[in-house]
Amino acid sequence: MDKEKYIISQFKSKFIGDDGAVIGDLVYSKDIFIEDTHFKKGWLSLFEIGRKAIIINISDAIVMNAVPKYALLGLLIPKSMSLNDIKELKNGIKFACEKYGVEIIGGDTVSSKLLGVSVSIISYSKNPIFRNPKKGELLAFTGSLGGSLKGLRALQRGAKISKNSRFRDVKLRDKFFYKTAKFIKSAMDISDGLASDLPKFVGNKDIKFLKNLDKFEFLSGEEYEILFSFDKKDKFRVINEANKARVKLTIFGEVVNGRYKTKSRSWHF
Amino acid sequence: MDKEKYIISQFKSKFIGDDGAVIGDLVYSKDIFIEDTHFKKGWLSLFEIGRKAIIINISDAIVMNAVPKYALLGLLIPKSMSLNDIKELKNGIKFACEKYGVEIIGGDTVSSKLLGVSVSIISYSKNPIFRNPKKGELLAFTGSLGGSLKGLRALQRGAKISKNSRFRDVKLRDKFFYKTAKFIKSAMDISDGLASDLPKFVGNKDIKFLKNLDKFEFLSGEEYEILFSFDKKDKFRVINEANKARVKLTIFGEVVNGRYKTKSRSWHF
Repeated sequence: MDKEKYIISQFKSKFIGDDGAVIGDLVYSKDIFIEDTHFKKGWLSLFEIGRKAIIINISDAIVMNAVPKYALLGLLIPKSMSLNDIKELKNGIKFACEKYGVEIIGGDTVSSKLLGVSVSIISYSKNPIFRNPKKGELLAFTGSLGGSLKGLRALQRGAKISKNSRFRDVKLRDKFFYKTAKFIKSAMDISDGLASDLPKFVGNKDIKFLKNLDKFEFLSGEEYEILFSFDKKDKFRVINEANKARVKLTIFGEVVNGRYKTKSRSWHF
Repeated sequence: MDKEKYIISQFKSKFIGDDGAVIGDLVYSKDIFIEDTHFKKGWLSLFEIGRKAIIINISDAIVMNAVPKYALLGLLIPKSMSLNDIKELKNGIKFACEKYGVEIIGGDTVSSKLLGVSVSIISYSKNPIFRNPKKGELLAFTGSLGGSLKGLRALQRGAKISKNSRFRDVKLRDKFFYKTAKFIKSAMDISDGLASDLPKFVGNKDIKFLKNLDKFEFLSGEEYEILFSFDKKDKFRVINEANKARVKLTIFGEVVNGRYKTKSRSWHF
């Protein structure tokens, strides 16, 4: 979103520009999840909305090699929601928080026409990992890309999608990532789609593609798979860790000199 | 809001229940400021919206006796907003941040049907001040209450209000508060109106009123004046600090045993 780029450019801070802001051994990140932008009524259950709102925030912490610990929870609650509805939403939030050991320490609840969840996560990291891979490093992503966009297209056509669709139930790769972190040189999560996230990731470098990727792999956002880089010499160590963690790994490129440009546009619905 | 109470009750944490969550010498607070809940189109300029969204967050830090330092900024931006509009909003945010020495370290921007600003503030405090005054302490508030509700009523009638109306331009009492903090036993900011905030402040104690307050003083929310308590023996020291800071002070009650009950309802528009 050009507006987001503009806003980021307006608040100059050495902390801005990664998945989280690192201050000492604390990492701060924030993501908003809101109706009509990230989902439409009926696409996700309230439980799924609560769970996804937390999971996509925890994703930011993981790719910084940080362990999420506390969260501030901002809720936008439509007047039409009953206490039972709120309970369902809360159950999803709690499920995700408990799964990842995150404690809600405060927040704000306001009534609003749109349902939304705004989360700030406080994490700890002794060795944070940033974006900006160096020349010569290999680029890879975890899992399979495309499922989120396929799920979204089905929902937009009015079709139903499986409960296991990535659009409804995001899977994070925390165990693989923390275990492999010693070999990982840079990382970010794929939230806007590879086509849109790659330039943010590599900055003013170019990529030599080692593999053809299809349209869905390039354009699908909200995947929350991990885009990362590592030294060539660690290639088999990284592959080995992925195999042990049963995480699919696609090594698709190498960082070279020059400036990466894409003609693809990021996906918004 | 009953729903807020319900939500708070669902996330049990020793950190929840004050204006901010204290972890070590860091204080975390969060407030959401959103269209159709806190303002309607045309009531506030975009500059005023940006400024107020930050100021009401800084208010939470001040009443905890914390110095705000960093902020995570969540923006909900309607598609209809131009880059110039965003610039005006940003100018208001920046104005408030610079006035109070707050640095934006990250955040999230999403497009949304409603304009909204969700802020998390990270502050430092060596001696945080909490709610819950003790029996025998005197209760006071800074400034004059009622102006925000009067401004709101005028706007709802379609009238114009002054740029200096408290509804448009919140004034904080940071200098007075930090200076007087050594005498202050408990504090919170008046955001929902005295009638609604007093029970949250005193918990299961009763108040002996030393002064009659009118309906506007009781019901007006979004005042961001400070409700606080102090020992009787420090009464003249507190009055002296208020005089020096040219802050109006109303000592209106004393905490006694029993359970405070109000029949007033909090104000929502």
